[in-house]
Amino acid sequence: MTAISSPARRDSALTATESLAQARSVATPAIDAAVLRLCPTLRPAVCDHLAGGGKFVRAGLVLASAAAAGADGRAGVVGAVAIELVHNFSLIHDDIIDGDLERRHRPTLWAAHGVGHAIIAGDALATLAFQVLLEEPTVERVRAAGRLAEATQEMIAGQAEDMALELRACLSVEECLHMEAGKTGALLSCATGIGAILAGAPEPTIEALSDFGRHLGIAFQAVDDVLGIWGEPSVTGKPVGNDLRQHKKSLPIAIALARGAALPSGFESMLERELTEAEVAKATLLLEQCGARQETLAIGELQLRAALAALERVPLSPGPRAELAAIARYVTERDR
Amino acid sequence: MTAISSPARRDSALTATESLAQARSVATPAIDAAVLRLCPTLRPAVCDHLAGGGKFVRAGLVLASAAAAGADGRAGVVGAVAIELVHNFSLIHDDIIDGDLERRHRPTLWAAHGVGHAIIAGDALATLAFQVLLEEPTVERVRAAGRLAEATQEMIAGQAEDMALELRACLSVEECLHMEAGKTGALLSCATGIGAILAGAPEPTIEALSDFGRHLGIAFQAVDDVLGIWGEPSVTGKPVGNDLRQHKKSLPIAIALARGAALPSGFESMLERELTEAEVAKATLLLEQCGARQETLAIGELQLRAALAALERVPLSPGPRAELAAIARYVTERDR
Repeated sequence: MTAISSPARRDSALTATESLAQARSVATPAIDAAVLRLCPTLRPAVCDHLAGGGKFVRAGLVLASAAAAGADGRAGVVGAVAIELVHNFSLIHDDIIDGDLERRHRPTLWAAHGVGHAIIAGDALATLAFQVLLEEPTVERVRAAGRLAEATQEMIAGQAEDMALELRACLSVEECLHMEAGKTGALLSCATGIGAILAGAPEPTIEALSDFGRHLGIAFQAVDDVLGIWGEPSVTGKPVGNDLRQHKKSLPIAIALARGAALPSGFESMLERELTEAEVAKATLLLEQCGARQETLAIGELQLRAALAALERVPLSPGPRAELAAIARYVTERDR
Repeated sequence: MTAISSPARRDSALTATESLAQARSVATPAIDAAVLRLCPTLRPAVCDHLAGGGKFVRAGLVLASAAAAGADGRAGVVGAVAIELVHNFSLIHDDIIDGDLERRHRPTLWAAHGVGHAIIAGDALATLAFQVLLEEPTVERVRAAGRLAEATQEMIAGQAEDMALELRACLSVEECLHMEAGKTGALLSCATGIGAILAGAPEPTIEALSDFGRHLGIAFQAVDDVLGIWGEPSVTGKPVGNDLRQHKKSLPIAIALARGAALPSGFESMLERELTEAEVAKATLLLEQCGARQETLAIGELQLRAALAALERVPLSPGPRAELAAIARYVTERDR
């Protein structure tokens, strides 16, 4: 599925794929080395979780941002490691909270090893991120660690709002966007921001790259929301209508609720009770028919453009700048 | 119950009580200010948990260590806040893992607000500790943050070992002490160590105060282990025989198992299955009779002495040094 169309799709996707593959090959050995510092009791479950893969979008953003801001060599690697550790900590805890049994076509950590083990495995990864950044406390790494702590807190706030919204019958588009800016935007903004920080870039560059990441995060989440309702289960690795079943108040829902009168009267109650297969299919169709899918993608498209515009605000190395743009297009075109 | 006797008990206990009351009155407003940075959705549950009180031993150790190492005024306060935040994060997550319904005579956070809410409330407090230390990144605070990350990882490792031991039928006294040094010793050692770090103390002072905290942590845990089996429920706020019911492999159990032949043949199997009231009482009596209670207290006494000896290794301000010694005696004499 092409979530957001783009004329340069084929070429940019190819470049983004290469860029993320490179990020994976650079970050993986460094993450593996960091994980060796965890206690032997926790390591097998953590390695099992990490072996599931992932897209390495956040590592790729740190490394490309550092390069775009003029870093030489491996300055960004420690940031890529720290961001991926925090990202995986959040996945492990979110899977417990959402009761998700599978991720990346494998049992989630809590499903395989128990809730208690998953709680402390997540705690261990979050802590490890700060250990990695603070063990050689240069000015840049210390600033990156402070930035990561702030972003992690924003991400947690987004997750808390998300949970609170699941229990409510209604929400506005603004509330939803605020929650998603925290849940996804904060860490992506941190990824591109600390890339620039670790490169020793000037303030305007750090700000422009942070803004790029924040807008991209919201676009990323808009696509995630579309996939959560219309994604192909065999590709996403999640059951059909997962978000509807779990009463997730995502962007398509907020948009549909804002339509109010245009929706059949039974729609709102479907957001609160257990749904049958047929009802999930019906709700999905209603969301499509009221234009919620198209409008969610339009919001994503707008945020993608704002992200790309931020890249033009400051001087950046042209190659890595193109790489960042390519990653941005790629993640808003993904089908998983 | 006087867990570990001491000739100077009455006077030192009084001084320790005053010292901890002062730590509470200094740390509480600073913790409250930090908690305002959490998202409004999480704050009520966190405030509810914090309102339960606690002994403020860790805050007291940071502040007294900073003063003993010559800090002027409020240099240690930020460390006291960070340590108490990490301590409370660990309590909130441990209560989920252990399935404990009550703490400090009140429902635990997960029991009152659900597991998901408790997971992210704990995550938020852990993250807040690093925000607090890194927002004004002086050399001392950065070093304190690095030390806190290492200690938090050690504490998590101790908790992981503790959980793994619950599933095993046997353990050695050494394994148990190693686990307890991580679970409790790491954070107490960090408390006294960062007190010295924030005071700008020389290396030998930082090391001596860290050693004091580590030995004290093991002594503290030995007393905790005794209270977990023989504590008075109306005072501890935990049910009778809580540790035996939960198959906690604490020091008295490790000591009893080391006695081997001296125990009745049914004892080992009692560590693995559901116990009736009568069986809990029987196991408690067997542990007492084989000397496990006395030997646990003797280990605590030995560690307390090692802690006090560490205080004599370096020059310290006499008043705060006496305060540290008083806190050490107080926490190893406590009945809750």
